[in-house]
Amino acid sequence: MKTFPLGFRAWGLHSGIGKNKSKPDLALFYSPATCSAAGVFTNNQVKAAPVVFSQSALRSGRAQAVLINSGCANACTGTRGLKDTRESAAAAASGLGAGNVLVASTGVIGQFLPMAKLKAGLAQLCRTVAQGKSNPLLAVRAMMTTDTVPKFEGRALRAGGETYRIWGCVKGAGMIHPDMATMISVVLTDAKLPAGFLRGALKRAADESFNCASVDGDTSTNDCIFLLANGASGASLSSAKDLKAFETGFTNLCESLARRMVQDGEGATKLVEITVSGARTPADAKKAAQTVATSPLVKTAMFGNDANWGRILAALGRSGAKLNPDKINVAFGNLAVARNGMALPFSEKRGLQILKGKTVPIHIDLGVGKAKAKVLTCDFSFDYVKINAEYRT
Amino acid sequence: MKTFPLGFRAWGLHSGIGKNKSKPDLALFYSPATCSAAGVFTNNQVKAAPVVFSQSALRSGRAQAVLINSGCANACTGTRGLKDTRESAAAAASGLGAGNVLVASTGVIGQFLPMAKLKAGLAQLCRTVAQGKSNPLLAVRAMMTTDTVPKFEGRALRAGGETYRIWGCVKGAGMIHPDMATMISVVLTDAKLPAGFLRGALKRAADESFNCASVDGDTSTNDCIFLLANGASGASLSSAKDLKAFETGFTNLCESLARRMVQDGEGATKLVEITVSGARTPADAKKAAQTVATSPLVKTAMFGNDANWGRILAALGRSGAKLNPDKINVAFGNLAVARNGMALPFSEKRGLQILKGKTVPIHIDLGVGKAKAKVLTCDFSFDYVKINAEYRT
Repeated sequence: MKTFPLGFRAWGLHSGIGKNKSKPDLALFYSPATCSAAGVFTNNQVKAAPVVFSQSALRSGRAQAVLINSGCANACTGTRGLKDTRESAAAAASGLGAGNVLVASTGVIGQFLPMAKLKAGLAQLCRTVAQGKSNPLLAVRAMMTTDTVPKFEGRALRAGGETYRIWGCVKGAGMIHPDMATMISVVLTDAKLPAGFLRGALKRAADESFNCASVDGDTSTNDCIFLLANGASGASLSSAKDLKAFETGFTNLCESLARRMVQDGEGATKLVEITVSGARTPADAKKAAQTVATSPLVKTAMFGNDANWGRILAALGRSGAKLNPDKINVAFGNLAVARNGMALPFSEKRGLQILKGKTVPIHIDLGVGKAKAKVLTCDFSFDYVKINAEYRT
Repeated sequence: MKTFPLGFRAWGLHSGIGKNKSKPDLALFYSPATCSAAGVFTNNQVKAAPVVFSQSALRSGRAQAVLINSGCANACTGTRGLKDTRESAAAAASGLGAGNVLVASTGVIGQFLPMAKLKAGLAQLCRTVAQGKSNPLLAVRAMMTTDTVPKFEGRALRAGGETYRIWGCVKGAGMIHPDMATMISVVLTDAKLPAGFLRGALKRAADESFNCASVDGDTSTNDCIFLLANGASGASLSSAKDLKAFETGFTNLCESLARRMVQDGEGATKLVEITVSGARTPADAKKAAQTVATSPLVKTAMFGNDANWGRILAALGRSGAKLNPDKINVAFGNLAVARNGMALPFSEKRGLQILKGKTVPIHIDLGVGKAKAKVLTCDFSFDYVKINAEYRT
């Protein structure tokens, strides 16, 4: 974790909210210095208590800590759920002697947080980080639900002769769809940046990364991304060039996290990268890409390594995007399989080679305009069904 | 087949379009007397050649035969596909000495019809029905693709002292979604009815039945429903009362066929009947019901017999329907599981009992209006993935 930003500490432990005793379920990210902070949240109308709470807490543009639990979403829990979130944030603030604490939760919907367990675990977490201890990997593991691997990544950049760091982590892995979903991401930087800039940069980066990812078309009650900057590196970014460099590095980091989140989608055996070009409008391009990305028939064909481009055309046909079916071209990687809406002869062997790859690029040219869009998704496997048939019970 | 209408003949045989030699793949429905006829077709912008052809053929309001093949959708096949469909219809018309022949196809998209095989099979079909032979079950089996059982049903009704019959069949079983999908249905009656009436009755019945059914959210290039009336019973329906009785019986028959189509959805282990009430508008009610019906997370929970109502609320939250999350009630059958957007204590044992049934009713009350909608769907099982990962190859 050489790129974990200066002045932040992170820890995770098992508090008993989750069932699996060998996995941490409560994470804390903390900076003794107050940070500029911004967040992006789910568009789902059914919002979990921590989403409502953190959205409001971020109006100040400042935060010092992020508390995250897995095992319970604290969604559909009414005023009691909101009170539980407030109490958790207050307990963390008092335990750390800190200001604004942000909260995120993930897990089963419709259950109350076991507050006694949470508070006991939280007290221990606060003591640990107050002693100066830090283990970001424990925090990342505490956020995980059906994720199979911890997903984090960092960058070191330079500004005004100083090195600063950007580091982020994300948890998926189902209910992921453009406009966010069952995902939580925390990005930290020790650069000094104002909250107003963070808000804009986060919104733009999310649109280029997490909002282009889809696992199953379901969006969640609990999604949030937090971005905190504490300035501990001494690098103060103010020139247009420095801000631009930060934003490029940050967007790039978010893209990489989003890609890894989809790769680790529930039951996923491969990443499917859908590019639509030649659309009439950007909205049409996005509609077309998203409809293909969420089609169960396309996703099961990808799992079966089946170059079934007909299902792609059928999905495009119901996408609502303006089409001329006789102008659509489709390729898997560099293998053209359909031209002008009709089959091209192609080597099934070469098709199989491409479809068996860990990343399958699907290029769709609608041929009616110049707009483009890209959506990342994964295939639909037996394991997706297995994981989600057995999740709650 | 006591309710198979007088004056119609049906036959099916294996022509070699499909791979499975033990299954018929070419069906013919034929009436020596010209019929009034109407059709309803897919809304998908990518339309198969037979859809384009039959839509145009039905402008006359008359037909004498319906030719259906499985094994090849003849979709995304351009002008050659359209020429193949026209040639098939012309060959059937000449073989039968008949007028207007309607055509439907189902199977893999993007492949051309093997015309030599089709024509040889068709010639034999024409000879068989010209001899007066009829075996509707063979025709129903010839339409099937991943369907596991033939689905047909009939009614006998009376008008003006005469008995007349309505009989229909349908093939599913994937790519089924409101506004039709990979489904073909033929409904025949020996009542005498004008084409104008048939058109209206078919549109209304489809909205109440097939357009309320969803298997996987994918809609197809090939869907069509045909309704033919040949008057062979001698029953001429003209009074408002008789027309009403026909329409009720016909709608009821379509509802039953739609229900059986969903029950036989790809990999389905159960029928899920989603009722939304208390919506602000009928459009909101439909949006809410359809979003729940197509949510992979809800459908896998149904497969896992998991009373995970949180996923229902999450789906409602992204449906776009006007909501107040604090007013939503959810019940599985008569077991209330959420009230005012929050958990109700309920017997997991009783929940399991309901969810293990062959039909699972989900009642959702949005609590913000008076509009209602119902959607039929099925669960998402390992077999759905298996069937669709291996379909084409």
